[in-house]
Amino acid sequence: MSNLVIRNGEIVTASQRYVADIYCEHGRIKAIGQELQVPQGTEEYDARGKFVFPGFIDPHTHVRMEFMGTFAADDYESATIAALCGGTTTLIDFCIPNRDESPLSAFKTWQEASQGKACSDFTWHMAITRFDDEVERELREIVSRGVASFKVFLAYGGALGVDDEALLGVMKLARELGVVVTAHCENSEMIDTLQKKLVDEGKLGPEWHEPSRPTFVEAEGTRHFCAMARVTGAHGYIVHLSCEEALKEAVEAQLQGANIWIETLIQHLVLDHRDAERPNFEGAKFVMSPPLRDKRNQAPLWAGFDKGMIATLGSDHAPFNMAQKRMGEENFCLIPNGIPSLEDRVRVFFTEGVQKGRIDLHRFVDAASTQAARIFGLFPQKGTIQIGSDADLVVYDPTVKETLSVDTHHMNVDYNPFEGREVEGRCALVTVRGQIQVRDGEFVGEKGIGEFLKREPTHF
Amino acid sequence: MSNLVIRNGEIVTASQRYVADIYCEHGRIKAIGQELQVPQGTEEYDARGKFVFPGFIDPHTHVRMEFMGTFAADDYESATIAALCGGTTTLIDFCIPNRDESPLSAFKTWQEASQGKACSDFTWHMAITRFDDEVERELREIVSRGVASFKVFLAYGGALGVDDEALLGVMKLARELGVVVTAHCENSEMIDTLQKKLVDEGKLGPEWHEPSRPTFVEAEGTRHFCAMARVTGAHGYIVHLSCEEALKEAVEAQLQGANIWIETLIQHLVLDHRDAERPNFEGAKFVMSPPLRDKRNQAPLWAGFDKGMIATLGSDHAPFNMAQKRMGEENFCLIPNGIPSLEDRVRVFFTEGVQKGRIDLHRFVDAASTQAARIFGLFPQKGTIQIGSDADLVVYDPTVKETLSVDTHHMNVDYNPFEGREVEGRCALVTVRGQIQVRDGEFVGEKGIGEFLKREPTHF
Amino acid sequence: MSNLVIRNGEIVTASQRYVADIYCEHGRIKAIGQELQVPQGTEEYDARGKFVFPGFIDPHTHVRMEFMGTFAADDYESATIAALCGGTTTLIDFCIPNRDESPLSAFKTWQEASQGKACSDFTWHMAITRFDDEVERELREIVSRGVASFKVFLAYGGALGVDDEALLGVMKLARELGVVVTAHCENSEMIDTLQKKLVDEGKLGPEWHEPSRPTFVEAEGTRHFCAMARVTGAHGYIVHLSCEEALKEAVEAQLQGANIWIETLIQHLVLDHRDAERPNFEGAKFVMSPPLRDKRNQAPLWAGFDKGMIATLGSDHAPFNMAQKRMGEENFCLIPNGIPSLEDRVRVFFTEGVQKGRIDLHRFVDAASTQAARIFGLFPQKGTIQIGSDADLVVYDPTVKETLSVDTHHMNVDYNPFEGREVEGRCALVTVRGQIQVRDGEFVGEKGIGEFLKREPTHF
Amino acid sequence: MSNLVIRNGEIVTASQRYVADIYCEHGRIKAIGQELQVPQGTEEYDARGKFVFPGFIDPHTHVRMEFMGTFAADDYESATIAALCGGTTTLIDFCIPNRDESPLSAFKTWQEASQGKACSDFTWHMAITRFDDEVERELREIVSRGVASFKVFLAYGGALGVDDEALLGVMKLARELGVVVTAHCENSEMIDTLQKKLVDEGKLGPEWHEPSRPTFVEAEGTRHFCAMARVTGAHGYIVHLSCEEALKEAVEAQLQGANIWIETLIQHLVLDHRDAERPNFEGAKFVMSPPLRDKRNQAPLWAGFDKGMIATLGSDHAPFNMAQKRMGEENFCLIPNGIPSLEDRVRVFFTEGVQKGRIDLHRFVDAASTQAARIFGLFPQKGTIQIGSDADLVVYDPTVKETLSVDTHHMNVDYNPFEGREVEGRCALVTVRGQIQVRDGEFVGEKGIGEFLKREPTHF
Repeated sequence: MSNLVIRNGEIVTASQRYVADIYCEHGRIKAIGQELQVPQGTEEYDARGKFVFPGFIDPHTHVRMEFMGTFAADDYESATIAALCGGTTTLIDFCIPNRDESPLSAFKTWQEASQGKACSDFTWHMAITRFDDEVERELREIVSRGVASFKVFLAYGGALGVDDEALLGVMKLARELGVVVTAHCENSEMIDTLQKKLVDEGKLGPEWHEPSRPTFVEAEGTRHFCAMARVTGAHGYIVHLSCEEALKEAVEAQLQGANIWIETLIQHLVLDHRDAERPNFEGAKFVMSPPLRDKRNQAPLWAGFDKGMIATLGSDHAPFNMAQKRMGEENFCLIPNGIPSLEDRVRVFFTEGVQKGRIDLHRFVDAASTQAARIFGLFPQKGTIQIGSDADLVVYDPTVKETLSVDTHHMNVDYNPFEGREVEGRCALVTVRGQIQVRDGEFVGEKGIGEFLKREPTHF
Repeated sequence: MSNLVIRNGEIVTASQRYVADIYCEHGRIKAIGQELQVPQGTEEYDARGKFVFPGFIDPHTHVRMEFMGTFAADDYESATIAALCGGTTTLIDFCIPNRDESPLSAFKTWQEASQGKACSDFTWHMAITRFDDEVERELREIVSRGVASFKVFLAYGGALGVDDEALLGVMKLARELGVVVTAHCENSEMIDTLQKKLVDEGKLGPEWHEPSRPTFVEAEGTRHFCAMARVTGAHGYIVHLSCEEALKEAVEAQLQGANIWIETLIQHLVLDHRDAERPNFEGAKFVMSPPLRDKRNQAPLWAGFDKGMIATLGSDHAPFNMAQKRMGEENFCLIPNGIPSLEDRVRVFFTEGVQKGRIDLHRFVDAASTQAARIFGLFPQKGTIQIGSDADLVVYDPTVKETLSVDTHHMNVDYNPFEGREVEGRCALVTVRGQIQVRDGEFVGEKGIGEFLKREPTHF
Repeated sequence: MSNLVIRNGEIVTASQRYVADIYCEHGRIKAIGQELQVPQGTEEYDARGKFVFPGFIDPHTHVRMEFMGTFAADDYESATIAALCGGTTTLIDFCIPNRDESPLSAFKTWQEASQGKACSDFTWHMAITRFDDEVERELREIVSRGVASFKVFLAYGGALGVDDEALLGVMKLARELGVVVTAHCENSEMIDTLQKKLVDEGKLGPEWHEPSRPTFVEAEGTRHFCAMARVTGAHGYIVHLSCEEALKEAVEAQLQGANIWIETLIQHLVLDHRDAERPNFEGAKFVMSPPLRDKRNQAPLWAGFDKGMIATLGSDHAPFNMAQKRMGEENFCLIPNGIPSLEDRVRVFFTEGVQKGRIDLHRFVDAASTQAARIFGLFPQKGTIQIGSDADLVVYDPTVKETLSVDTHHMNVDYNPFEGREVEGRCALVTVRGQIQVRDGEFVGEKGIGEFLKREPTHF
Repeated sequence: MSNLVIRNGEIVTASQRYVADIYCEHGRIKAIGQELQVPQGTEEYDARGKFVFPGFIDPHTHVRMEFMGTFAADDYESATIAALCGGTTTLIDFCIPNRDESPLSAFKTWQEASQGKACSDFTWHMAITRFDDEVERELREIVSRGVASFKVFLAYGGALGVDDEALLGVMKLARELGVVVTAHCENSEMIDTLQKKLVDEGKLGPEWHEPSRPTFVEAEGTRHFCAMARVTGAHGYIVHLSCEEALKEAVEAQLQGANIWIETLIQHLVLDHRDAERPNFEGAKFVMSPPLRDKRNQAPLWAGFDKGMIATLGSDHAPFNMAQKRMGEENFCLIPNGIPSLEDRVRVFFTEGVQKGRIDLHRFVDAASTQAARIFGLFPQKGTIQIGSDADLVVYDPTVKETLSVDTHHMNVDYNPFEGREVEGRCALVTVRGQIQVRDGEFVGEKGIGEFLKREPTHF
């Protein structure tokens, strides 16, 4: 790997903006300045007129996921290539044991699935679907191996969810270890009740998925989790918050002293419940949980990003092909949940957020990269552009316009939820630790170079 | 039993105020008018210058209660005499099975404890501490026997509390049967966590009881229960709501369409956390759950009564003698919970509420009598003064001032939480179905005449 | 006038429900009982199978009103006949001086307009459109003549509105005199700004009226007025609250101790913004302020009635014929504001509220009659059925179904906003102080018997 | 002025943290890297073991202020020296015309007061105390001269305050010009009413200042201003928000799309109402508006900083000597408002915030420097450390502990509100555009070098 200098780009971080050269050596940023002198043999890239962003981080993906007996369609190779083409240089996947599986066993499964296949760096949140002494022991082991975040489901009671006693156990352990607890905040039992009622009434299409898990149920789950955070003092992270009602609960909890961060997905910002109402089972493409909401929830979510209450943007990438979606053709409860969005997350966010004046460039970088790094123990190795950081860089040309489509995307799934949507900007260059992986939006790099990122607990 | 005419009193109901005569025949109100002509032999009572109220109803008592292995100190005779002396002519007790006991077995226990002993009419809420098919079958039977309300505990997890699945089961059954679900809304697991933390820190006195179940935990439980009510459509009743934070949650849920009523206790209106901080273990007298709160919660609670968001005033009467309270001398978690207040509820409410201008006379009657009758299926037999209603009447002389004290009260417990407090007014006459049971604040009637009130479900 | 006995009706008040006879003598209720013996010559009316309600009270009408140079189309005769046909036996009009007129001069104008013309009893709120020493002196005089409520407009800045200094002056005076301040809570200047913006953009049709005064502006005005009430201790009454956002502000202020009552209109409960969007200028029929809102505001308003946060139902009756509405054909800002609803208020409320299960019978009576009497100093003369009250009674037959229409209504206006809507129930009999004015929905009584009701201040 | 290299410091910006050298040339940052080679004659400073922060910005000072006829005790020289000693390298003062003075006249007064006297750079917000065509014309001129922010007072009605019409005029102009409107959000008339009431009751000491302007009045004013921002689309900035209640209003408005930033003062974070209750008129030292609040407001304010809802930390520096404070000895309303805190703002914030774990280092820099630069058009010239920015740098030694005192401070006022408080850290070096002005906490630089910063409007 030769060294690299990126010249004259407009460097934008969460709190800076200036034109300078960046010199990368041995995978790290070595110097920043004007008219930098670099060793001979250094590869030169002229970024004049383009932005240089820190590599983007997706804090929420399901590259490997079993859901209702079927598997998400990507693997670590296809997912990381898609991610890189869209500017994402680090992803945080969820390592999820089956209910009866031990955490370490799942850990090993995820290692095998990723090692030597990933084309970008990665790590994962350790999901906890059962909590007992054995599990606790293994979790301590897993944290010591560099996993600094847990995941709990308040939803999916029978399968993945935990009850209050287990939840408090997990959070107390997390508090002790300085680990963040990420949480899916929908109440499992309430949803079961509502689903059963709808099914009994013959309401079976994908458009009934949202009414089976209304905003007040998510808001209640959010409040519940935040109260748990206050009781234990643990640091919590609400994944995929989808609506104004839940947002208000989380913000109120923040003001009351709960150590809570909020993540929202690109899907909830730009798609809405009408997509799930598309006829001919097209709506199934847009079934995920929490569901796409009424459009009027989007403005408060954008405001939450703009003002900083919402920390991070995720994708909750969970790609299922239409053949899989059709498992729920007779009953929406059986549709595999997920909307593939790993590749397009950053560009849609830039287009709808920055270019339409909803957020500024700094919050864009902060939400799509820096905050995830800081919350999850990757900072300052990732998430910023400073001397000594990994040279994960995205040279972004905002003048290119492209139309998103299943025909051109790199994800291994047979539809694109943003089909036909125009985005502004393309990744002219993407590097992973100084190595050029993408040029002009296409993967040109080396497969399998992605590394598992060991993380230290950061919150005490 | 001779007939009775009460002449020239100022009749006050939840929505009326006028001077007239009331003629009672065969236990019921037969005529209302001026200068009523009555049959010879009718007993005459001159109520000039006094109020005539409908008999008061206490919707929340624990006459018979086991708590941590010890029993509350009253029985049905002593409790109903105390109640009558204070103007309460109907009480709704809680019939609580042990965790392993069947509902019908508890029902029988309560029948035996009350039949032939009670001096006022009574009924009870059926507590559910476990929920399965057998329990459900018995609950249906119990409802058919005239019990139109259930009780669930979100608190007391290991002993009495139910988890979300059971709670939803109960509420769906209640919805089907048209029965109200009353609920103690504190989250059990959160409190366990906080208690353990305090005990570990050596914080063992009664003053630590409140910090072990802070307002935000009650607010969260309240929100949780209200969400359950929305999901199921069941009618819910929040017992002993104690603080502004929980009040706001319940009111918000009401506005969102939850069928929710709120009860607050006289204790939370006039006592506060400083009472539980009294030295020399005196604070133990003031340990109950939810705990007495910071004084600034009282103004919103009074406002809630004034404006009608809070429906009813209860006592949560649970009398434990100091010898029993001392079980928790080394650890506040072991103090039997309860503050005796059955006898003084009405007069303290009148004094602090009406006389101090916080609520008007109509809301006083409404909150202490009428609402409980309407919510729990006793109306219009009880709770109002109209042709045909039971002649449960309280002639109240507002000009008498008395000082509350253990020395003069009729409850079977060795302290009075309102010791030394002056109240305005005394019950000059109290009748149960036309029979005079109290004169000038003293029991002069017949023991054991109280009847179990069969109630029909009212909420569909 | 002969005496009257109404037999066997089901008497329903705000807190009672029973079958009995009511005997009326010299305009008042003399006796209530079963099988009442009455003097010979007493007129008998058999109300078996029908409800007997206290006469309904409309706390908010504009029988006489100038708006933008044109006058509302009813006079006191036509308005009170329409009111009586719909069961309203008392109305509270607004006496509104022009900006340069003295209060006493307006008072005299209203006296002349009503005396000898009204067919039901009436009173008015005294509007204050300017505040100085002279005005204050006259207001004291007017209160002494029996007007116990004021009205202020936060809206209509240039014409009727008052600034903060005047508002505080009025409220301090009201506090001193024990008079209620009713208030229109929209901020005048904000609306001017939004109107100008819309007009500049060529948005001129009636459908733009609502966006020119959005819910957040009403909510802000509501909050502002409530804060004024807290600062001064005055008793406030928010007229025609129209949306969830404002409702939450008012309820929060109530909990914080503001002495605030809330009124909502029948229009806001059953009509919505889509009515104002009807094509061909039909929308103009539905232009009023605050405007009809998005339909999702209705459920919280109904809940507010159900739970008692909203005290009263008004009509804000302000009838303008289509020829008048057309003044705003080129510019919605010039459409006279108002939707005629005096006649249909009670029956629509009964149909949509009681019959559809949104409120119970008692709250229906309370909101449409009793509360207005209590708040505005008419109780217990009006608003209830008790010994000694005025015999203003409505015998209501809930089994009759009728369709509302301009062809059959009694209001003097050429359209009916509820055209084609079916209502359940008809006024079989309506009495004013014992005199039969309406039979089977038609006026059969004596014109001009309505009296001005002198009221005492009630809130100190 | 020689060039300067600061070596081996730990550079901390709002989103970065790393060890590197910074080379400053001609007043700007020229290069950042490790082991930088610099021209001969460059002054070297070894910052090993110390932080290097961007120069701090105080967005809210009153260096020159008349209040009730008396003048604040500092001038531009003493104030900027004090500021620099505490790490503040830029201050934004308020240019406030008298009610009858033209804006340009005041602008000239401020120019004369500052030019050649200031030792740090500065700018000001242009206060608007009257609004008419003439004022508007001059404001346009002033904006063109580089003032990109206005100031309005909702408080101080008779003297400085503006009514709603003027406020809307200002905000529409600001919207057009892209200028931020800063606002003091307390309602003038409400406070007058409450003050009068307290004075009438003989409540005259400084401890009554807070009850005369309670939190709900500030919350109402905050809500009012935010609604104005929504109506006009202008960008607003709430100065010195002091309490939880107002914070919630502002955050809610942010979520609803208002373009609102929040500033809180160091005083409100660490001092509380008990300070204003100190005996012997000592409380007068702690009289400012909004007043110091009950201590329980502090936790939500810290949380607001931690989570980013509160953008900036100000000082509202307004120094009055005790002789001046004594003007209000007989009546708290006459106490000149203000608590001197320009010098100590940063170090107290670092000590109480970063060192006590309430905020992290990045939010510390962001709130005390970067955000003010970004909101007010100083970024990236000020507020960050990047290639090309002004070399305003603070080398901060966190290991030094000092005790704050009037005896050692540099402000020209005879008391220190933080007297006796220990702070962690001292400014080892402070530069203004590369020029060393402070060493080891003492001014060692050149007087009068401060420049007026011309700012471009930034918000459209």
